[in-house]
Order: sequence, then structure tokens, then C-alpha cells
Amino acid sequence: MGNILGQLFRIATFGESHGGGVGVVVDGCPPRLPLTVADLQVELDRRRPGQSEIVTPRRESDTVQILSGVFEGRTLGTPICLWVRNEDARPEAYAGMASKFRPSHADYTYLAKYGFRNWQGGGRSSARETIGRVAAGAIAKKILREYYGVETLAFVQQVHRLAARVDPESVRRRDIEANPIRCPDPAMAARMIRLVERTRRAGDSVGGLIVGIARGVPAGWGDPVFDRLEADLAKAMLSLPATKGFDIGSGFGCVNYTGREHNDAFRMRGGRVRAVTNRSGGVQGGISNGETISFRVAFKPVATVMHEQNTVDDTFHNTTLKARGRHDPCVLPRAVPIVEAMTALVLVDHALRHEAQCGRHTQPPHARRPTRSRPPR
Amino acid sequence: MGNILGQLFRIATFGESHGGGVGVVVDGCPPRLPLTVADLQVELDRRRPGQSEIVTPRRESDTVQILSGVFEGRTLGTPICLWVRNEDARPEAYAGMASKFRPSHADYTYLAKYGFRNWQGGGRSSARETIGRVAAGAIAKKILREYYGVETLAFVQQVHRLAARVDPESVRRRDIEANPIRCPDPAMAARMIRLVERTRRAGDSVGGLIVGIARGVPAGWGDPVFDRLEADLAKAMLSLPATKGFDIGSGFGCVNYTGREHNDAFRMRGGRVRAVTNRSGGVQGGISNGETISFRVAFKPVATVMHEQNTVDDTFHNTTLKARGRHDPCVLPRAVPIVEAMTALVLVDHALRHEAQCGRHTQPPHARRPTRSRPPR
Amino acid sequence: MGNILGQLFRIATFGESHGGGVGVVVDGCPPRLPLTVADLQVELDRRRPGQSEIVTPRRESDTVQILSGVFEGRTLGTPICLWVRNEDARPEAYAGMASKFRPSHADYTYLAKYGFRNWQGGGRSSARETIGRVAAGAIAKKILREYYGVETLAFVQQVHRLAARVDPESVRRRDIEANPIRCPDPAMAARMIRLVERTRRAGDSVGGLIVGIARGVPAGWGDPVFDRLEADLAKAMLSLPATKGFDIGSGFGCVNYTGREHNDAFRMRGGRVRAVTNRSGGVQGGISNGETISFRVAFKPVATVMHEQNTVDDTFHNTTLKARGRHDPCVLPRAVPIVEAMTALVLVDHALRHEAQCGRHTQPPHARRPTRSRPPR
Amino acid sequence: MGNILGQLFRIATFGESHGGGVGVVVDGCPPRLPLTVADLQVELDRRRPGQSEIVTPRRESDTVQILSGVFEGRTLGTPICLWVRNEDARPEAYAGMASKFRPSHADYTYLAKYGFRNWQGGGRSSARETIGRVAAGAIAKKILREYYGVETLAFVQQVHRLAARVDPESVRRRDIEANPIRCPDPAMAARMIRLVERTRRAGDSVGGLIVGIARGVPAGWGDPVFDRLEADLAKAMLSLPATKGFDIGSGFGCVNYTGREHNDAFRMRGGRVRAVTNRSGGVQGGISNGETISFRVAFKPVATVMHEQNTVDDTFHNTTLKARGRHDPCVLPRAVPIVEAMTALVLVDHALRHEAQCGRHTQPPHARRPTRSRPPR
Repeated sequence: MGNILGQLFRIATFGESHGGGVGVVVDGCPPRLPLTVADLQVELDRRRPGQSEIVTPRRESDTVQILSGVFEGRTLGTPICLWVRNEDARPEAYAGMASKFRPSHADYTYLAKYGFRNWQGGGRSSARETIGRVAAGAIAKKILREYYGVETLAFVQQVHRLAARVDPESVRRRDIEANPIRCPDPAMAARMIRLVERTRRAGDSVGGLIVGIARGVPAGWGDPVFDRLEADLAKAMLSLPATKGFDIGSGFGCVNYTGREHNDAFRMRGGRVRAVTNRSGGVQGGISNGETISFRVAFKPVATVMHEQNTVDDTFHNTTLKARGRHDPCVLPRAVPIVEAMTALVLVDHALRHEAQCGRHTQPPHARRPTRSRPPR
Repeated sequence: MGNILGQLFRIATFGESHGGGVGVVVDGCPPRLPLTVADLQVELDRRRPGQSEIVTPRRESDTVQILSGVFEGRTLGTPICLWVRNEDARPEAYAGMASKFRPSHADYTYLAKYGFRNWQGGGRSSARETIGRVAAGAIAKKILREYYGVETLAFVQQVHRLAARVDPESVRRRDIEANPIRCPDPAMAARMIRLVERTRRAGDSVGGLIVGIARGVPAGWGDPVFDRLEADLAKAMLSLPATKGFDIGSGFGCVNYTGREHNDAFRMRGGRVRAVTNRSGGVQGGISNGETISFRVAFKPVATVMHEQNTVDDTFHNTTLKARGRHDPCVLPRAVPIVEAMTALVLVDHALRHEAQCGRHTQPPHARRPTRSRPPR
Repeated sequence: MGNILGQLFRIATFGESHGGGVGVVVDGCPPRLPLTVADLQVELDRRRPGQSEIVTPRRESDTVQILSGVFEGRTLGTPICLWVRNEDARPEAYAGMASKFRPSHADYTYLAKYGFRNWQGGGRSSARETIGRVAAGAIAKKILREYYGVETLAFVQQVHRLAARVDPESVRRRDIEANPIRCPDPAMAARMIRLVERTRRAGDSVGGLIVGIARGVPAGWGDPVFDRLEADLAKAMLSLPATKGFDIGSGFGCVNYTGREHNDAFRMRGGRVRAVTNRSGGVQGGISNGETISFRVAFKPVATVMHEQNTVDDTFHNTTLKARGRHDPCVLPRAVPIVEAMTALVLVDHALRHEAQCGRHTQPPHARRPTRSRPPR
Repeated sequence: MGNILGQLFRIATFGESHGGGVGVVVDGCPPRLPLTVADLQVELDRRRPGQSEIVTPRRESDTVQILSGVFEGRTLGTPICLWVRNEDARPEAYAGMASKFRPSHADYTYLAKYGFRNWQGGGRSSARETIGRVAAGAIAKKILREYYGVETLAFVQQVHRLAARVDPESVRRRDIEANPIRCPDPAMAARMIRLVERTRRAGDSVGGLIVGIARGVPAGWGDPVFDRLEADLAKAMLSLPATKGFDIGSGFGCVNYTGREHNDAFRMRGGRVRAVTNRSGGVQGGISNGETISFRVAFKPVATVMHEQNTVDDTFHNTTLKARGRHDPCVLPRAVPIVEAMTALVLVDHALRHEAQCGRHTQPPHARRPTRSRPPR
């Protein structure tokens, strides 16, 4: 029962790697939003395997179909079902692993929980499950962009020990998309790419950090005390496979400051209340303050490595396992659109929640931004 | 509408600092659990102001009343309402702040969201709101302890730049409670205490890290894909005031490893499947694997400092503000029971969810632990 | 976990008859709504015992306190906790019943479910629990009235076999409140009152029908396919103690028509789309159509009668039981404000849901009514 | 956002008549349940058009595909997506109706709510949407039957003014399925069939009553105060197209009794607490009491009739409309499996909820029935 997310803009994902396919039902989408397959496919293409030399060479086109909820190019307000058929499934690649628990995967825990598991390609615990999130997230991004003027971005900030310095206020999508690792610092990107290639040749893997950004969020989104904006972002990010941590604004680095140093002073600027610094990361007391929202997500190195490892089999005897199959040596470039999607899903839900309880224009005049209204009838 | 947490063991908190009081309604508690005020008060006493020299000197006894749901010393299975009256409220201390936005507080964002706010002591955004969580968490802890043999713990691992080294497998509650900073390393605790005292005298504040632990959790709790155990823990922790980050197991440190180094090998030990290392932090694929769950939470330095700071007033003009009132120079010691409470609330909800969907004994025999059953009729 | 209702305007009720008291937490109320104790007390006074000769003579003032969420006479947007202390509890009246299951009460089923029960006055299953609903409903009614121009009404249409003929389009609150049975037909009301008095003297009880009405609901509220407006109304009404049925519009009488006879033709009238007849009861396809919403709720005769009845005790032996205590011979007059409250709670939740997904003015121009906007800042 | 139902066993339906197809995602199904397409198809075949002479002659095989959640013939515990492709869609049949609001349909209200609608065959408001409910309900029925020994049944009790007398305690599925109208009284069934045929020839339609039954439900299911078992049943039934009313046990007839007459006395029988009569309909205080649950659902006559009717077009001018297309003159026979499905969905959700909060065997010994346990690992 953990496969539904959101209060108003709700998604229910389904499907397994190596089953028939994967998909999502979006319930609560505003009606009359222009929506085509192309709006969705562009995001899925950023996520799909085989898109560059440094990701898994599996060949899946990840072509999305809209099964319901759209009529004559616009959303109906009824559930939108999106579906991507699996193509390049090779269950035989997993045959040797059917009875062994891959270390640091979900094989053992799925068996412990459900007493039964689909051992082909990880089943539901496969990163393939995120296709539904990216497809639904494409709708969320479009709503944020068109109705609220909000832009969601993510980029690779660190791979293993190679860390880029990037200003979240000014980074642009085209700089992120300019290279296959999706790091907007071209020199560091080149080094990261070489590291990933070396890692692949060594049959090993590496992790890293992704920074997520939302620009243009008005002051007022977020729902204390439990559904604080950063709380829902943290949940969304930690619900992604391979994530180990989340922080926002100054994050774990906050410990290095005293209160005097850490506080974000307020000043009027351009007729609006502005925070002079942004250690809060765009959220104060669980509610957006109108500054850029920025947070980090830690991704562990991929658990599939081409070396023999100690493990246990499903008769509960010690054994060893050496992975086969075609895997990413580093998930981060493909995780960038996924982080964006989850960000957008959280934000659009909170946008609708805020308007429901507080109305569109509770923000004080200085906090308002001109927004396009929803499409006319 | 963000004041309700949980799917089966649900809590709804209410109340403001400087209003009549604060409380919580717990819906979904198993019936026939022995429960007294003393079970709750012991946890509230660990959280309350004035408990030691290094916390705020406000004098609140935080005496809890059980308003409903308990009969003849046992829970009825009906909603339990717990209520703590405010005592030492001094709204006049906030009078000067009524019209100014305290930097890095929620004053501005609450106004931006709701168009109206209780300026006395932060209202709902006050840490006083966590009383309801701690009271409800005391019930959750008791269920976990009595029915599942699960222990939840937390301790202060770092204050500003002073970091202790503590083994999460062996740390004991009495070592944590042995000093007012709640750091189980006595030498480091002494240094931390001196730092907090110095900080207070300087009118400044410091943050730090708390480690949360759950021992004895059976393999199988957690509900992928969205309600992964670590995702719900992350949300619970980031829903606390002053938190800036969460990580689990190797956490943000995962970037320093390659996959070969990072993976937790499985071995049979004591008839059970065990992870030889615990970089996963007790959770794999969103589901507990039977190892100790351990995670870190970053708390920023308290935003209230006794120095003049730049800010804006509610007529949207620049001004300055110097805080008054009695505040903690470091929230961490009082946040320890709060982190424990949130951990327990997440775990008990997932325990019930797991049993509902999968039954109590889906775990393979090696994963089972002897658990006391619920009280007989 | 069944004590929380609503998606956006959410209520959590708590408390038992003969416990400390009863109350409710309202989460998601729009901010800045003027709200005083008087707004709530007027509705609680319509529900309270002892208000007239034909209801239970228990003496409870049912004085409500606002424990949180209101500041300087306006709602904060944070949880509103409302609390009514029990006064005239006489647990000794129930002493003889502690070990016997009252027929057609919830004594046996509460024991079967929870393995434990508060036998004093029915505990949580007491109609006293509805106090929280009425208090929260008073807020919902105020929002509907002030922001949407929607009026919610209910009246007694039938007591035992005495049925009044009342036009739901024109009935007025003052005619309903003009007599203690709350039937707007004065002649029939007099007969009903005499019947209730006779019934009381006979130590017996009677049931009847209440009609619920909402006028001024714009076209567009309701959320198919599961959260149809009539579905949520049906749930709300069947969640009340002693209810046995719900129908809307033509209701069970629909079987007497053919489709040609039953259909509500549309015609333009006053610039709006109008249904010439209203067999739909104001809802079509689960969504309000702008006509008056009207439905019926069947209340069984009160199960407490002053005669010896066969039953079983909690050692599972046959026995007999004769009730004592002060009870209503007919719950209907006191149920009128409860039905109104539940109607308002359902409608306000759907109003907010509709605006969240579809915006305030998706209705075609002809469906719009002038509405006052929410209070300015 | 109204397309998701249930707390633990949750379903999300999607799809429109005349879109690509219709389906459902089931989240929270217990793992290891044997499940095949045949388990689902048998129920869909009872619902599909063209199954007999008295239903719509549309030719749709309604062949269901399992897209996810089942592996090697057993459920995985992960989301199960079921999908039925539309076949015999003839949008041209609706061409003339694109701009006119069919009376007593959802055309006008969908436009009023969403500002946009799929006019082909009613889109989402079509009864075709119930396919997802029936498919999910087939899973729920299997769980109830296999793990709990609970049988869910429904039958046609009345068509227009022709009412059968049937004992809910003894009626058998084979008697219901013995004729195309699904009324277990053969003589009355024959009269009903003739009436439906006459009605069709007249281009008119008729409604009627369906009785729903659940036998073998243990005492203890249901979750007061809001999620009373009858409240959730009422919501489920009123969420079906064309329903106008729900009552349980004595239902609306309860008004004809006094309390003395109406109460169900308890007696020990066969070692169990039994109600001597069953005016409660198997539920007391919102919780099942171990007796047969029985309730009625009123279905209005189908709104599509082959006669000219007054209506309005979408330019808001008066006009007339005469329906075309292939429609049921009486939905009741096809609604029988739908009522069963909704009953099962409500019950299985409450079964899991009860076990989560109260454990499997809180029922007192006399209330227990032997149940098969869930499948072994």
C-alpha cells in the first residue's frame, strides 16, 4: 500500500522490471491542460538507458502511451494512465541469481517482507519503476511552468570524490544537458566522465550527489507541521532507489556555523521581502519563503559490481555471487530527471493544497509574482 | 491540513506556544495496552524546558493529561487525546517582535501563507508543538518495546565542531542520559557542555547532529516504493523544527566508497541472515533487513540570538531586531527524545501496516525473533 | 483509525461519554475566518440534552472551549481543537449493565472488536461523540454561508408513521426551529410531539426520517468516481449512530418511475441551466448541478427501552436486561443539527477540493453565482 | 482526486468509455495469493454487455490483462494493474449528442466541474468505468473466500414495481445465476424479464433494487466513528452510477417499529453470541456482529431513453434530444456483480484494518470461526 503519493495531485505507480511494463495513474490533475505524448517522452528520454556511453547499454526506447485522461490534446481532470512497455528484458541474465540474495539489493528484504519475489531484474525494486514517476513528473513540471512560472532543475554536483562548484541561482538547463554526466561545470564534467569510464572498466561503481533546485516558487507553499515542504521533499528523495541522504540549504554544513552566522537576514529588495543569504534553502518553518529552493541528494554507488561477493542463498546457506547483466556504473546522470520529477510532484501537490486552504493570493502584495492563469474555457 | 501523520497509527497534533496549551489525538492505537500518565510524563520530562543548566530556563512542568481513550489503565482502541496546558507563557516578551519578522524563523512565511499569524512565541511554529509528538511517541515506544522487542534510542553525536565517536550497536540509554547534553561519550559531553555555556554567554547559538537508532526491528518493515522506511523516517525528521538534513547508514559519506567497498555482504550467523557490515543502515530497498537502523539528523543553530540583526517589518520596511526571551542556546539535548518519538511513530505505523498486508510471520524462519504477543483478553 | 474524516477540511474526533469529555481537532480550516465560541455554542445548544420536554432530561450545558487555532477572534489556519467537558455523567446508572450486552447497542461488537470496552454510557459509541461533529460542523457551516452563500438545513419529516409533507425548496429555518420536534409543519409537529410523549410514558422509543438540504451549492462540487458528492454524504450520514438508510432525490422511490418519467429535463431559466424537476436531488454523475441538494436519513427507534429484554452477559450466558438511565425516546429532534453538521463538513471539503483541482471559476458563466470572497488581509 | 478507494487494500481506477480502455491498480494486496486471469474474467463476464437478451447488445469481450503484480501465478504484494481494452466503441453514435446535455446524465455537471469533457459515450461517467471495480473486486472476493470464509452475494430483489421475497440467509448463488435477470425467485424472475423486454420495446427504461449480502463475516470488522462498516458500504454503493439510495437491515422500514419491537435480542446458540432477529443487518455500532450483513441499493431507471426530451445545448440554448446507441433498458442484472465487487472491496479493507489494529483473534472465543490461514511460504 506504499505505491501512492500525494494528497491532491496523486500518483499510483505500478509495474516491474521484466514484467509486461511499468506505468502510473495520475489522479487529480487540473483539467484543460494541453498534454501530448511529446511532453512526457522528452523527460523519459533523459532517463532511458542507452542514451550515452556512460550509462547501461540496454536498448529500451521507453515509449510512453497515454491510456486515459486526455481528450483532444487536453487533460480531462480524470485519471491519466501512462504506460511504458518493457522491451529489452533478458530474464535469463538473472537466472543464476534467482536463488541468491544480491548484496545491498532488495532481494533479501523483499523475500523477508512478502515471502515471495520476482527475481528477474529486481522486479519492483528495480530503478525501472521510476519511469512512472518521471512520466507523471513531466505533467507536474508543465503545470508548474505554465501556471506558476516555477522551474525545476537538477544537476550532478559530485561523483565519488570529484565535486563541482555550481551556483544554484544561475545554473541553466542547457549547461546541465551539455554533457552526458549532467554536470554544468564542463571541466569537472569531463573528469567525472573519465572516472565513470574507468570505473566501468574495473567492473566497479561509484555514487555521488545531485543538487535539486526550484526557482520561482512563491512564498507560502508547504504545510506544517508534518507536511513541511522540506519534509515532503526529503521523503520524495529518500523514496528513490539508491539514495542515502537529503539536506536542504546549509544542510549538514549547518553545524559549522553559529546562529549569528547562520541566520538569513531579511531586506526589502525590488519591492519584495528577500533573504540576503539563503542558508534556509528557500524554506522557513516548513513553508517556502520565495527564495530559490535548493537541496542535495546522496546516491550510493550502484550495488551491482562485476566481482565475486559473499552472500547467502534462499536455502540460507553461505555462497558467493558475481553479477552479470548490463548495468550503470553510476546512476547519477539518469537520476537527474528523476530528482526533477519528484521535486515537481511535491511542489504541484503543495501548490494545489495551498490554494485550497488559503486561496491563490494570500501572499502579501510584495510576495506575489505575475502568474499566468489556468487556461480559459 | 498537514497536521496529521501516519496511515494506521495516526496522530493529529494541535496547539500553539502561548495559546491555551498543546496536545495530540492518537487514532488507531491497539486496544488493551496498559497505559498511564507516568508512561508519557517520563518522556515529556526529558523534553521539557528547565531540566538542566544548559537549556532554556523557562519553567514549565509540561504535565500531561489523558483526556480520552484510556479506561481502567488500558487503551480502549478509541482515540487517545493527550493535553498539556501552557504555564509560563510571557507574551509580553514578544511584544516588540509582533511587527517584525525574526530572521530564519517562520514569522514571515506564516504570514505569507496564512495572511495572519500568532506572533506570541512563534505560535504553531514553536518547538513547543513537539510536545504532542513526544507524548504520542511514548505510546509508540511502549508498543514497540512490549510487543515487538524493538528499542528506539537517540543521542547527540556532534555539537558545532565537537564530534563524538559512538558505536550505534552498543550504545546504552543510561550512558546517553548520564549527562545533560545527552552524548554518551563522557569526555566529549563535558566539552560540549562547556561550549554550550560559552555560547549562551555570548548570546549566540550552536547546532549539531543527533543519531537515531532502532534495534530489534525484524526484517520486513517498510512499504516501497514511496513509503520506504527511510523515506518515512526522513520525512518525520525533516518535519521537526530546525532540521536541515537526514541520512541513513553510510549517508552522505557513501560517495567516498566504490560499489565493491560499499556493499554489505550477507553471511549466515546465529541461524539468521546477517549483513557483515551495515552501510545500508538497516534498510535495503526501503525495507528493514533485521540489522540496527541508524541515521543522522542535522539541526541548525537556534535562530534566536541576542544580537541586533537586519530584518523587515510587517509594513515591509527595513529595520533591525534584537531578540529577548529565554531560549535554548542549543536545542540538541532536548531534541533527543523528540527524535526518538518520531522514530517510534514511524516504526509502529509500519509494524501495523506490515502485519495488515503480509501477516505477522511472513519473515523466513531465520528472520524471526521471539516476540511477546499482544495482551490476552 | 476510523476517527478522521475529510481530505482537506479534516476532522479528528475524540472522547467518550462518561470519560473526561469529548472534542474534535479541525485541520485545514481556511485562515482569517472570524470565529468565536458563540458561533459554535449556538449549534451545540440545538443538540444538547435537556433543551425541551421531549428529549433526555440529562443536564449538560455542553459548553465548548476553543483550545487552539484561533487568535484575536480569527482562525490561524492551524489546527482548531474544540473541547466540551462532561458534566452530568452518572456511571452508576450503568453499573448493572457493565457485564451485559444491551440489545442493538454496540456493547457486544465493541468487545468483539477491541477485546475491552468502556461500559459507562456506551463510551465511544454514545451519541455524545457527535458533539465534536457539531462543533466542527459549525465552522463548516460558517464557511459555506459566508464564502459560498450555501445554506445547510435539516428537519424532521417523519416520526414513526407520522409523515409531514414539506417542500425542500421553500422550507425555512425559523419554521423548523419553531417547535421542539423540529418539523416545519406545525400541525404534524404537534401530533409528533404527542406521540413522543406517549412513547416515553410507555418506556418505549420511536424512529423516523430526517431530510437534509443544501441550497445554493454551485454546479461542480463532487469528485467522481468514488468521492461522488452523494457517496460522501451517504457515508457521513451512515456514520451517525442509529442510522439505517440514506437516499437522495427520488431515492428509493425511483423504482416507481420509468426513465421517461424520472429524467430531469434541462431548460434555460434566469440565464442559468436549470433542471425542471429535481429527482436527481441536486447531484448528477456525482457532481452538484446547481439545484437544491436534498436527501433523507432513516433513524431507527432508540435501542434503550425501559422493558426487560433477552440478552447475553460477558461470561456468555443468557440473561435479561432492563434499562435504566435518562434517555431520549426519539433522537430525531436532536439529530437535526447533527445532520446539518455532517452535510456542511462534506460540502466544505468538496468546495476546497473542487477549487484545488479546477479553480474557483471553472463553472460556465450561467452556473456562477455571486459569492463573497474570503476576507482580505 | 476521487478515483482512489480504500485505506489498506486500495484501488485506483482509470479509463473512459470510448478511450483506449479501462483499468485499475490494486495496491496493498496480500502477497502469495494464487491469481490468474480466469479468477478475474469470470466476474467480468457476469458484468459484460451482450451476455443475455435483456442487456445492451454491444459486443465487448471485456478481456482482462494482468499488467503487473503477479508472478508465476501468485501475487507479489506489489501493485496489480488490470487492463481491459475497449473494443466496440462507436463514437459516431454520440456525434449528435456532443453539444447537448443528456437529461439526468453527467454531461452538464462534468462540463460545469472540469470546463471540458469527453462526450463520447459518457467518458469517465460511463458505467464502463466499473470494469476496474469488478476486476479488483474479484481479487477481494477471493481473499475473503479463501482466507476468511466470507461469501459475498447480490441479487435483484425488485424491478420497477415487481418485488421478490427472498431470504438473505439461505439464498444461493446458483439460484441467482439461474436466470438472466439474476433474481433467485424463478417465477418473479420470469415476470421481471418480460417487463424488461416490454420496456425495451417501448424505448423506455426501469430501475429497481439489489440486495447485497455478506455471510461469514466475523464479529469485529468496522472502524467507528466515521469508518463504520455500514458507512463505508453506503459510500461504496452510492459511488456507483445510477444509485439513489442505500439501507441496511430494517433500513427505511425501521420507522414502522418501536424500540421494543425493533431490538435484536441476544441469545447463546451453538456456543456463539447470536442475534435472534437481524434488524441490525449484521452491523451494530458500526462493527459487524457475526450475523449476515444485508443491505439494499436503489438503482434509478437508466437515463437513456429513445424518446425526444427537453434539454439545453452547450451554447446554453433550449433544444431537444433523442438518444441513439445501444443501451440497457435495465441495469440491474449487470449491476449484481458490481455490487458484490464493491461489497468485497469494503470488507477486505476492513479485514486488514481490523487485523492491523486489533490482531486476528481479538474476537472472544465464541465469535471465532475456523479460518484457513494465509498460504505458507
